[in-house]
Amino acid sequence: MKPVEGAEDARREQRGRHERPGESGRPLRVALLGCGVVGSQVVRLLNEQADDLAARIGAPLELAGVAVRRLGRKRDSEVDPALLTTDAEALVARDDVDIVVEVIGGIEPARSLMLAALEDGKAIVTANKALLAEDGATVHGAAKRHGGDLYFEASVAGAIPLLRPLRESLAGDRVRRVLGIVNGTTNYILDKMDTTGASFTDALEEAQSLGYAEADPTADVEGFDAAAKAAILAGLAFHTRVTAADVHREGITEITATDVASAKAMGYVIKLLAICARSDDGRSVGVRVHPAMIPRTHPLAGVREAYNAVFVEAESAGQLMFYGKGAGGAPTASAVLGDIVAVARNRIAGVHGPQESTYADLAVHPMGETVTRYHVSLDVADKPGVLATVAEIFAKHDVSIRIVRQEGHGDDAQLVLVTHRATDAALSATISGLRELDIVRDVTSVMRVEGEESS
Amino acid sequence: MKPVEGAEDARREQRGRHERPGESGRPLRVALLGCGVVGSQVVRLLNEQADDLAARIGAPLELAGVAVRRLGRKRDSEVDPALLTTDAEALVARDDVDIVVEVIGGIEPARSLMLAALEDGKAIVTANKALLAEDGATVHGAAKRHGGDLYFEASVAGAIPLLRPLRESLAGDRVRRVLGIVNGTTNYILDKMDTTGASFTDALEEAQSLGYAEADPTADVEGFDAAAKAAILAGLAFHTRVTAADVHREGITEITATDVASAKAMGYVIKLLAICARSDDGRSVGVRVHPAMIPRTHPLAGVREAYNAVFVEAESAGQLMFYGKGAGGAPTASAVLGDIVAVARNRIAGVHGPQESTYADLAVHPMGETVTRYHVSLDVADKPGVLATVAEIFAKHDVSIRIVRQEGHGDDAQLVLVTHRATDAALSATISGLRELDIVRDVTSVMRVEGEESS
Repeated sequence: MKPVEGAEDARREQRGRHERPGESGRPLRVALLGCGVVGSQVVRLLNEQADDLAARIGAPLELAGVAVRRLGRKRDSEVDPALLTTDAEALVARDDVDIVVEVIGGIEPARSLMLAALEDGKAIVTANKALLAEDGATVHGAAKRHGGDLYFEASVAGAIPLLRPLRESLAGDRVRRVLGIVNGTTNYILDKMDTTGASFTDALEEAQSLGYAEADPTADVEGFDAAAKAAILAGLAFHTRVTAADVHREGITEITATDVASAKAMGYVIKLLAICARSDDGRSVGVRVHPAMIPRTHPLAGVREAYNAVFVEAESAGQLMFYGKGAGGAPTASAVLGDIVAVARNRIAGVHGPQESTYADLAVHPMGETVTRYHVSLDVADKPGVLATVAEIFAKHDVSIRIVRQEGHGDDAQLVLVTHRATDAALSATISGLRELDIVRDVTSVMRVEGEESS
Repeated sequence: MKPVEGAEDARREQRGRHERPGESGRPLRVALLGCGVVGSQVVRLLNEQADDLAARIGAPLELAGVAVRRLGRKRDSEVDPALLTTDAEALVARDDVDIVVEVIGGIEPARSLMLAALEDGKAIVTANKALLAEDGATVHGAAKRHGGDLYFEASVAGAIPLLRPLRESLAGDRVRRVLGIVNGTTNYILDKMDTTGASFTDALEEAQSLGYAEADPTADVEGFDAAAKAAILAGLAFHTRVTAADVHREGITEITATDVASAKAMGYVIKLLAICARSDDGRSVGVRVHPAMIPRTHPLAGVREAYNAVFVEAESAGQLMFYGKGAGGAPTASAVLGDIVAVARNRIAGVHGPQESTYADLAVHPMGETVTRYHVSLDVADKPGVLATVAEIFAKHDVSIRIVRQEGHGDDAQLVLVTHRATDAALSATISGLRELDIVRDVTSVMRVEGEESS
């Protein structure tokens, strides 16, 4: 909590125009931008829980207006038609609005509307991961400049209280690593592949038929959605500005039923993980999204269906996990409402909450410097000396082998290897070397292994 | 955030004596009460992370003094001997102290010291679950009266950020139920019994030899520790004052290897749960600590060894779980440090954080009104008509049966029943009725079943 610069002046000025929120029962007025799946649930909760919210805040909340694209559309919850407007700019500019809730998503017009609101001394609550990950500097910068609140709990992992714990509860600790299942669609698909043996295509179709995946599933299955969340998490965990462009990203479209079965046979399960990790020397961070094998005994392994969970390793706290629903109207609205209560309390007190913290300003290291373990499957010729030749390539690139298993015979001979910790660059060089060997018919899969002790 | 009443006056007065914290680099000064397992880790973190803490707070933290019982004792971390004192009262009274960190535990002298500090305008960070659960009214009341911060994240579930999410992130939602594994000792014992088939006594001995259980394990195994935490959780979740005396409490000393095996056979695992639940009509809450069977597919079932986890069901957020280390020096110190950062930021801003919220003021209903499911094992005579006679007793008390299983024959005949939802009073009456039957040789176990859909 920092005092708003010039807060006293601002308050006096505000009192000139109208009473200060919270005084003489003057309500805090909320402008809602967007009334889709999340927005309509925000309206519902503001109505249904009005008394509880007023008691918790110390003043009632009032919906000042709801900006929508089309007025006539049918909506999930009852919104007073008199509150609807297609002029979001005018709504944001109204001088009786205290808090702007942005659930439109995307870069524009969300960014311009948020900047206008901040410039005008309003507080922002947003669920906009894309904007924060792509151009967080602009909106956080404006919040700092104007001394305004910018809260965004709903932008990562929906209902799960995660950002507040990271930036407040762990403020006295040092985060080493964050491993997150932050995309429900891909977790649903991978869980189905794991439990039923389905192919990626079949599992995706099922997810689409159940509404867990969009008709165009690219943003989910290619890891774009998770990458935006990874950037936001890394920024909070390491007090460093990280953008979506800094995040190494691989999707799950190439995961086969064979990969899933092979992982299972070795006691692993495949998950799409968002990983934010400090380097061993603490001087840089790596931020990446890719499918990875984790041991079935790891707490993240039990995260089923479309649930999300984020596993945090901190120096003193040790291992923590936060689990819950990562998407959906009501869960996301719950996170939005929690932020509305927080900024409302701040506004009554004339202060703002913690702002973006980037003091550590660590470098984001390239993927090649990432250190982890790898699971490699090779189609090999079934003759003596194969293992020796293969092992030599690993040794040449300083990648040491932890487990080797030979499966099948003759044309079906498969070599499955799990390495010790090595850099991504060393592993890539090893794979190139293996591809050049005559006795290696094919490198059938390469997957990172995460969540093991000191991996 | 509420402005501290008379904050401006207080600040001016304080500036008269010394500079306001955070201004001109004046550090925030911390008095530490207690330097045992947790306290010595707090000292270590204050030293090791001084630069990070200063950057996150906006002013350095300085240890003003450490109150201990004996000066000569060997400690886990290096504390400057010049800071040690046996006069806790004088340390708390020093007018250069901003924040008092209380990790002595127990009711007195902790309470008197905290009251003196609050009266004096200081902020408190405490890990004292016993005091908050037994006499929270007095300390919370003093915090409110004097406009001082009282933060207590470390009092429940150690390192797990739990209280802040409950009172802030979920401030816009309605909590239905909290199911928590909040005692690591008993979870370790029950986990060993489940995985190895050990008896309670053997598992307890192992826990003691590993330092997970005290020589006198009463507070843990009889559920007193969990009951204090349940009272604190219920208060936060339901905006109602709940004390340890309101909590129905049963320990785990009577759980047998047979109970554990029987649960396993039915797809359950036995956990000691702290349960805080709103009644169906929303007008009262039940708060209880007892062993219960939960399905092996429930997220809490996978909580192994001495880990803690708290499962929260909220109307909009849905199911959430928070997992991590519930005890230990460094994990608990991490939670203490998070609170120190929060109160330090508040102090610089001249505000205080959210205070105790008891506006809902719900009644705590007696255990008899609790509604849940039950698992009942009976030693019965192996003759025709037994099931009909037993079923009649259940029906008479309006307890409907969901599953019946007959095991063994002749002298070993066992009847295992799982009920639908019923009140605790109805189940107790049913059990009394069963005991009166000639054909029932013994009621070998009665255990509540939690964590199933709508149970």
